[in-house]
Amino acid sequence: MPVPIEIIILGSGSAIPTLERKHPAILIKYEGDYMLFDCGECAQLGLQKAGISPMKIKRVFITHWHADHFAGLIPLIETLHMLGRKKMLEIYAPEAERFVETILELSYWSFGFKIKPIDVSIEEEQKIVKEKKYEIFSLPVVHSVPAVGYIFQEKDHWKIIPSKIKKLGIPEDKIQLLKEKGKIKIDGKIIEISEVARKIEGRRIVYSGDTLPVEKLFEKASNSVLIHDATFVEPVEGRAHSSFKEVCELAKKYKVKKLILTHISKRYKNHSELVKKAKKYFSKATVAKDGMKIIL
Amino acid sequence: MPVPIEIIILGSGSAIPTLERKHPAILIKYEGDYMLFDCGECAQLGLQKAGISPMKIKRVFITHWHADHFAGLIPLIETLHMLGRKKMLEIYAPEAERFVETILELSYWSFGFKIKPIDVSIEEEQKIVKEKKYEIFSLPVVHSVPAVGYIFQEKDHWKIIPSKIKKLGIPEDKIQLLKEKGKIKIDGKIIEISEVARKIEGRRIVYSGDTLPVEKLFEKASNSVLIHDATFVEPVEGRAHSSFKEVCELAKKYKVKKLILTHISKRYKNHSELVKKAKKYFSKATVAKDGMKIIL
Repeated sequence: MPVPIEIIILGSGSAIPTLERKHPAILIKYEGDYMLFDCGECAQLGLQKAGISPMKIKRVFITHWHADHFAGLIPLIETLHMLGRKKMLEIYAPEAERFVETILELSYWSFGFKIKPIDVSIEEEQKIVKEKKYEIFSLPVVHSVPAVGYIFQEKDHWKIIPSKIKKLGIPEDKIQLLKEKGKIKIDGKIIEISEVARKIEGRRIVYSGDTLPVEKLFEKASNSVLIHDATFVEPVEGRAHSSFKEVCELAKKYKVKKLILTHISKRYKNHSELVKKAKKYFSKATVAKDGMKIIL
Repeated sequence: MPVPIEIIILGSGSAIPTLERKHPAILIKYEGDYMLFDCGECAQLGLQKAGISPMKIKRVFITHWHADHFAGLIPLIETLHMLGRKKMLEIYAPEAERFVETILELSYWSFGFKIKPIDVSIEEEQKIVKEKKYEIFSLPVVHSVPAVGYIFQEKDHWKIIPSKIKKLGIPEDKIQLLKEKGKIKIDGKIIEISEVARKIEGRRIVYSGDTLPVEKLFEKASNSVLIHDATFVEPVEGRAHSSFKEVCELAKKYKVKKLILTHISKRYKNHSELVKKAKKYFSKATVAKDGMKIIL
């Protein structure tokens, strides 16, 4: 069984929150690592509802500096202070330094942990996090202000086939080394990992933030999970957002495995109607809901 | 019947909000005027629950710049922008200019209304709003950072006794003038307002914000409504907050008419237990709850 990856939609709404759809915020949990993508108003209450302590958040990724995507950061920092956080909090965003500095001027703060802002490029795709088992990338998108999407990429890894290990007489304590190096010498003979293990392709989650449809983002989401801005059902002229129709069509073209439409305008009241519309456009689409949990 | 004054507790919690007790925010409605006292995270959702459009807010009064008292301002401004507000929004606070300026640097704002910051004194009591029928005062309190409480004061006014008006033969169209001037000359004879009307004392609401007990605030709340910081049930050493015990004792001493304890720590889970404790200390005390409405 692969490590479960949990995605929790804390907020599925857009600029004006409603009681049903709060501001954007998405939690991704990978083993012990908790990552927050956007942090709109009430994000910390979404965490409470999901039974997750905000102290567990390791990194926050902000797509752009519109209040619905960051307004929850300030009260989240206050809560972390009150809970006695010591561990550094990393905040990734376009112009993170500038805006985090402004946040730090906005209150009589007195917290005992470091906040590290990390600027991400709005020019080109960038690898911004390198962990042992996964990486995170930012990718420029097209909105009314500088904005990026984010890609969570689990690394490909090898699943050992015990019968083959046994057959080739590889000692138990050498398996980890074999996984790390890709090959190992046993009794003068080189054994490749591919001889005794099956390659497991890493899972990928793509999150768009606010954007007009950007083909490259869909390309990245091929055979993966895509969480995408779908503020409107049909395209709306002059708004730097995407629609159900556009997103579903591109997701279909690029063979997205699972599409979650989010950042839903408050004009749409009937959730199940929206789900029906999404599925009519693309059978693998669904519509985000506050508190929705997806396990990969 | 006097004009009803509505008080709605949008948030009754303290620095760490819970699903039951959100950050501090109190709405006071007087005729068509909607005033917000503190604006913690989710204040706009509290307004939605109460069925009040945020567009109606005329003035915001921030007691101090700790995130639990202002974090809702940023997303509120975003919402007002999205709803197309044109009317100026006044924000009163200690150091309002400095902090509002910082808020304006914190996002890619593009709103079409003016935000006017108004500094209030942390040295002395100050009359900050003068309306036809009411006034608002700020009063310094004692917290860990510069902080004030606010006093809503309805003006005293005269209730005409129709039988006396008739008896003295005062024409209908002179009554308004009599109310405004306090006296009027009819057929060469001066008539004082007190001869034909009953004086109605203006109602008063005192809100403390975060503070240690400040005797002057209780003095102001004599025979009035007092909404007071009561983070803890018993006093807690070294914390710049008040307790049920201290607040109730002083409220009793100064003959407060109705005491609402608020800014309740998340450590207390059982609301009805808290109410019992409050009433044991002072029979006219109660404990705030999110969504609580008080009509005077």
